[in-house]
Formats: sequence, structure tokens, C-alpha cells
Amino acid sequence: MTLAQRLAAFAASLAFEDVPDDVVASVRLRTLDVLGIALASSRGDWAPAVIDLAGNGGRECTVLGTARMAPLPLAILVNGTLAHGLDYDDTHAASITHASAVIVPTVLGVAEAHDLDGRSAITAAVAGYEAITRIGMAASGAFHARGWHATSVCGAFAAALTAGACERLDAARLTAALGLAGSFASGVMEHLEDGSWVKRLHPGWAGHAGALAAGLARGGVPGPATILEGRFGLYRTFLGAEPDPRPFDTLGREWETLRVGYKPYPCCHLNHAYLDCALELRRAPGFSIDAIERIECRVPAGEVPIICEPAETKRRPRSSYDAQFSLAFSIASAFVDGAVGLDTYASAHLDDPRVLALAARVSHVVDPESPFPKSFPGWVRVRLRDGQELEARLPHGRGGLERPLPAEAIVEKFRDNARRALPAARVAALERAVLDLDRLKSVRELMVLCRG
Amino acid sequence: MTLAQRLAAFAASLAFEDVPDDVVASVRLRTLDVLGIALASSRGDWAPAVIDLAGNGGRECTVLGTARMAPLPLAILVNGTLAHGLDYDDTHAASITHASAVIVPTVLGVAEAHDLDGRSAITAAVAGYEAITRIGMAASGAFHARGWHATSVCGAFAAALTAGACERLDAARLTAALGLAGSFASGVMEHLEDGSWVKRLHPGWAGHAGALAAGLARGGVPGPATILEGRFGLYRTFLGAEPDPRPFDTLGREWETLRVGYKPYPCCHLNHAYLDCALELRRAPGFSIDAIERIECRVPAGEVPIICEPAETKRRPRSSYDAQFSLAFSIASAFVDGAVGLDTYASAHLDDPRVLALAARVSHVVDPESPFPKSFPGWVRVRLRDGQELEARLPHGRGGLERPLPAEAIVEKFRDNARRALPAARVAALERAVLDLDRLKSVRELMVLCRG
Repeated sequence: MTLAQRLAAFAASLAFEDVPDDVVASVRLRTLDVLGIALASSRGDWAPAVIDLAGNGGRECTVLGTARMAPLPLAILVNGTLAHGLDYDDTHAASITHASAVIVPTVLGVAEAHDLDGRSAITAAVAGYEAITRIGMAASGAFHARGWHATSVCGAFAAALTAGACERLDAARLTAALGLAGSFASGVMEHLEDGSWVKRLHPGWAGHAGALAAGLARGGVPGPATILEGRFGLYRTFLGAEPDPRPFDTLGREWETLRVGYKPYPCCHLNHAYLDCALELRRAPGFSIDAIERIECRVPAGEVPIICEPAETKRRPRSSYDAQFSLAFSIASAFVDGAVGLDTYASAHLDDPRVLALAARVSHVVDPESPFPKSFPGWVRVRLRDGQELEARLPHGRGGLERPLPAEAIVEKFRDNARRALPAARVAALERAVLDLDRLKSVRELMVLCRG
Repeated sequence: MTLAQRLAAFAASLAFEDVPDDVVASVRLRTLDVLGIALASSRGDWAPAVIDLAGNGGRECTVLGTARMAPLPLAILVNGTLAHGLDYDDTHAASITHASAVIVPTVLGVAEAHDLDGRSAITAAVAGYEAITRIGMAASGAFHARGWHATSVCGAFAAALTAGACERLDAARLTAALGLAGSFASGVMEHLEDGSWVKRLHPGWAGHAGALAAGLARGGVPGPATILEGRFGLYRTFLGAEPDPRPFDTLGREWETLRVGYKPYPCCHLNHAYLDCALELRRAPGFSIDAIERIECRVPAGEVPIICEPAETKRRPRSSYDAQFSLAFSIASAFVDGAVGLDTYASAHLDDPRVLALAARVSHVVDPESPFPKSFPGWVRVRLRDGQELEARLPHGRGGLERPLPAEAIVEKFRDNARRALPAARVAALERAVLDLDRLKSVRELMVLCRG
């Protein structure tokens, strides 16, 4: 069997009863997290141009946080973009993929269009999580190193599998959907060069592509089963490399869904453990910002082009989006403000002279022994004016399996996000519906609550 | 200026009056060619699953050859797929791109949605032709060598420029559209491994992606201006290479639109000059199929993985689509039947024992001195049973600038294709409208004639 056939066989045979309880609970909570973020995003000043893609006159699917309906593929494109719009959605470290921003909008869109129940949605979502993570892990770190955004590239395949699984396509058609998705998968990181924010669109584009691939496969369109490991397949064409098939060996035995880490901070996940370090150092008795001479971060080489360079714009971000991908700005904000949240990246904060002055004193050194991308560690050294040195080092940021956030923290995060778009009673009703997803008769009931 | 900014400046400043008459005439004829092919495609047994992507309830744009209307991006996806569906549409050799299958459906879709006149459509189309060719020429042959289909990858950018030019976006927004298209561009050639036909979708996917990118740019979404030559841009990320910027130096001075070659045969353009050679040899006095011992084609190395290997399936194609990409099958059909047309690749013909027996005796040798991909040459040697050797060699197939087809041949090809979907009177009316495109007040009038 090819790698695509293995994923298809797994998805085609997966029943709700096969999914462990903790994985089901994880999908419920991830759905809540993503819906909250997408709802908050729908009020962003950048959102109208994206929401306009939905067009007018659609009837099939809800555009989150709005009164609009759109055809399925366009709804997924918009909703997936909103889900990733604040860079606040979860990340699977070993594959460096924003799994939920691809999977949740895809599965909710298809479930709404086809009037599916919550269990079907959860089962299809699990197939998607288990796929996007493994497709990325088979070339761990290589997509980003080459300039690809793994979320959108690997996500197109996972979304095709998810959408097809929602529709109960058989293994042959799911394989075809994966084969077709290979010609739709894309997403480069050139946006890092100028602070423009096309990356927000990547999970939506992946979901959109996957839903169209599944739709074609449903109609009988064939696609190459060798799309992942083949001569002109994903790994050789995108990366010029062979895949490592080992992650596929654990399908159905290990649940990568559980290893997707939530974000406590609305910025690039690579910053997170450094922010935890900074906030820890800041809490030390007698610590004062004014005493800092310089801050040195020890960073894995693979993170440098994403959060450290070009140093000039990382220290003085040109946009909120730029700032979210700046280790210097983010860590300086943590030291100055004592917290990192949506306000950290608001336009008004980008010019804060105290933050910019401190950001100018943040430097990085490559840590050649970093475990990245298996984990996203943090390592911060602060040199004080009196010559004293402080250091904090964490193997992982909070939010993943190793340093889990309590479910209550994710529910709290949802409430804080969702209230920006919906009245309080609706936020509460939506929270109840999502946390009861596996007993929900119709996903449509849930989507109705998301309309703004 | 970046390469994207140069393309954007060209497109933003191009006026109909700047376009030479022969280029205008070329766009008219290419539009006719593509519409004929798409109409014939709409009757293919593979077409319904593609047409279904259009959904129901759309009102904006015509789905060619059908009674359906669809939202703009989905209409372009379907129509672009139909345009390339018979592998009968034109090719620009130096970039190896099927330019018209991307550009024409995109421009007709946007012009229909926004009710533009024929001159606006022609001008925007020229911007697209001049872009897709140069983006491909800047890495001539490299996309295919790596496994990418240059048509869809380069086409996404060209379609973004075309759609944006139709909407009269300024140079800054056209640049953003190109930057956004960089995250949507895709299309691999893994389909060659199993005869599945996802490649048909590539020009439609490019047009679809480009229209969405232009829509986002219109709404003010930014995109990186360095998307072509940047650190994580097209050439470095997709190819690991630097672009050759020289093709961009001739923008507005040389018209690559004129160098796009029509197809007299409905199969991969790389086969064409070999088929011309075969039909020429077949016309020699006293020539007989039974006298052939073996046929040797001298082929550039870059063509081998596309039309010669894997040898087993090229000699015995598994599908019509496989057969269109088989030099052995195509050339054997030319020798046996004395003609190559839509019937050559009909299912019934795939099992023709005479063709298969001759295809088994076709081999290839790499020609290390081939000018490919600057041109697509043909070189066929036939060894007869009596020891005699015959040879034909052509630097180009018919249909390009060097061996042009008369306009009447393209009109004849259109009629033969369009009549498969439309009644004779409508074919005649459509022909008149398209050949008068630069005087047409509303492209909608033309699109109404294409409804089935």
C-alpha cells in the first residue's frame, strides 16, 4: 500500500467507537478553541476583504461571525482564514502544522452542508488530525526550511481526507481525493519578508482545496495513489527528498491529535516557551526592567529565519502581523508588560517606546543542540547592568502534552474571544453545544449559533 | 522594482491601443480555439464530476456548454478544466505552459461577472499571456524537470494579473495579487505515474486561484512584492533556484502571445513534431506499415519522463489520458491510421491490436543536443525489415510561429469541436462574436451563446 492508501484505509475504517475518550474530548475542546478565535477574527480590521470572498447569494454554509452564507468551498476558505487570523490557534510541534485551523473549519463546513451529526464530525476530524501531523512528520522541519508553510501544504491532503471521511467515501475514493489534493497544495512563507499577512489564508486555502478534491473524488475523478512518495509526488517535488514513512506505522495506535499544543499567547508558536521564560524571570524578586543590559535568546537554527531575521524588522515590526513573528518584540513586550495577549499586537502597542527600546537589546545565538522541531523549547539569558546574569530554560511552552493547560483555561480563552463577536447568551449556548458535540444530532444547530 | 512589480506595472499601464494588431488577432483566435475545446470537453464522459464543482444556485458566470451558472471562482475552475480537458489547447514552448487554457477562461469569467467589453478582455488577456510565458521562461524547463506542471504553477500568477487587470486594479494591488497567488500556486505531475487525469484540472485551478487572489487584493489584502525572486518565493521554494530575469526585459517590446503554438493534434505537445514526422514518412511512395521492423525516436532528456517512461505503460496505455502522453502509442497510431484526432484517443482505439503491435516496436534514444525546451522538435528513424532506414526530422511541430497553421485551420478546428455541444446556428453566431471580440460591447453576449 502507498502512504496515501494507508491514510485512506485508516480514515475509511475509523468508527467513532474506535476513538479513545481523551481524543474525543480533545476534538471537542479544539473545536471550541478554533470557533472562539474565528469569531474574534471576524471583527478584525483585516477581516472584511476575506469575508467578501464568500460572495453573496450562497445558501450552503455559515460564514463564522457574520450573517452570510456561502458555497461549501468558499465558506471553508473564509472560516479557515478566520481560524488562523490571530495566530492564536494550536500547533502540532513535530510536524509544525496548525492542525485545528485546517481541520475544524473543514469538518464543520462539510457537516453543515450535509447535515451530519456530531459523532460523524468528530470521527472525520480525528482522521484529519492524524493525517496532517504524519504527513508533516514524514519530513519534519523540511517544509519550513525550504520556504513552505507545512500547514497549508500538508493541510490540503488532510482536509481532503477529512472532507471525504465526512461524506463516508470508500478507501479508493479517499485515496483519489489525496491524489487530487496533491495538485492543489501550496503555501509559501515569503510574507515573512514584508510583514504582509497571506499566511492567515493558508489553513483556509488548505481546507478549500481539500473539500474540492473530495468533491471531485466523490464524483469519480481519479487521482494518483502515489501522490505522497511518488516520482513527482509531494516529498520529491516540494522538497527534493524522500519521506520518512515511520510516522505512518503508528496510525490507529498512537493519537497525534493529543499532541497538538494549544496557544496561550496570540503569536507564532515558536515564541511561546521564550515568553514563558521571560515571564518567569520577570517574577524573580527585585527584578526591574531598567536593570536589563541585554537579552540573549538561544534559538534553534530552523527558527531563525521565522522569528529572528531580518533582525532590523524583527526589532521594529512594520505591522501587527510582523510583530507576531518577532521574538525580539514579543519577548520585550513580555518583560515590559508582564503579559502577552491580543493587546500586545494591537497597532497602538507597536510604537511603545519602552518595548522598542528593549527589543533593540534582544539578540539571538544559534543553539546547535536544540531538539527543534520535535519540540519548541525556550532559553533566555538576561545580562543585568550590574554584571549579574539570569537564565531561564524550558523544554516546552505551556499548552502541549508535556505542560498541559487545564481545560478551563481553553474554555476561558474561548469566552474571551467569542464575546468579541457574539452576545453573552449566545456564547454560553455555543459553549454548551460544542462541549456536547458527540451528542449533537445536527452540526447545523451549532453553526446557527455562530452567525453574527 | 521586483519582478512582480514589473509585471504589475506593465499590466496596469497596458491600454488596448498599445497592443499590436497581430496580437489582438491572436487573442481572438485563441479565444475561439479554447471555447471550441471547452465545449467539446463538456460532453466528455469525465466532465460531469468536474461540472458538479460549480454547485447549484450560482448566478454570476456561465459554465461552458451547460445550463449552469456558478460563482466566478468556481466557474473559472470548471471552464479552465474543460479548456484543457482534451489536451488540444495551445502551448508556449519556451515556458512549457498551456497559456490559453488559463488565460481565456479567467478573462471571460471576470469579464462576464463585471460586464466588461471585448477590448478590456483582450487587453487583460494579453497581460496574462505576457506574464505566464515570462514566469515560465525565467526557469525554462526547470518546473517540469522537478515534477511541477508549469501551466498551473506559473498560471496562478498570470491569472491573478489577468483578473486584476480586468478589474483595473492599480499596480500596487496587482503586485499584491501576485504576492497572494504565490501561496495558491500548485500542480504536480504525479498523474503521469498512473494515467489518472488530475492534470486536466491544472489550468482551471490556476485561474481559480488567480481570481481569488485578485479578489483579495481588490479588497486591500497585501501580498509580498518579492514573491517571485524572494528568499521564500516561487523560484527558490519551488525549484531551489534563482530566476533568470532576462525574459522580463522584453515586456511590452516583444509579444510572447504570438509565440504560443496551436495544437493540430489532441495530445501532449511534445508528441507533435514526431507525429508530423511520422505522417510525412507514411506518405513516402511505396511505404507500408507491414514493412516496419522498428521505430526509433530521438528525444530530449527533459521529455523522457513525460512521454517515454515508464515504457511499459507508454506502449500499452491504461486510459485515454495515458495515451495522450504516450509517444509510442501516438506515433504508432499516426503510422497505422494516417491521422491523429479525437478518435485516436477514444477508449475503443486503445485496444487496437495493430496500433499496440507497432507501439511495442517504438523505442527512444536521448538526443543530448536537442534545443528543448526552446522548441519541441521531432526526429523519427524507421528501420524496415529489408534493412532500409528512413528518417524524418523537424525542428518544430506545426502550429507555432515557425510553422504556422492558417487561421482557417483554427476556425475549422473550432467548428468541429463546438458542434459536439451546440447546434450549428449557435456555433456560427459564437464564431462571429469571438472573431469580432474587439468590437463586442459586452462579453456577456458571447457567454450566453456558450450555454448548453
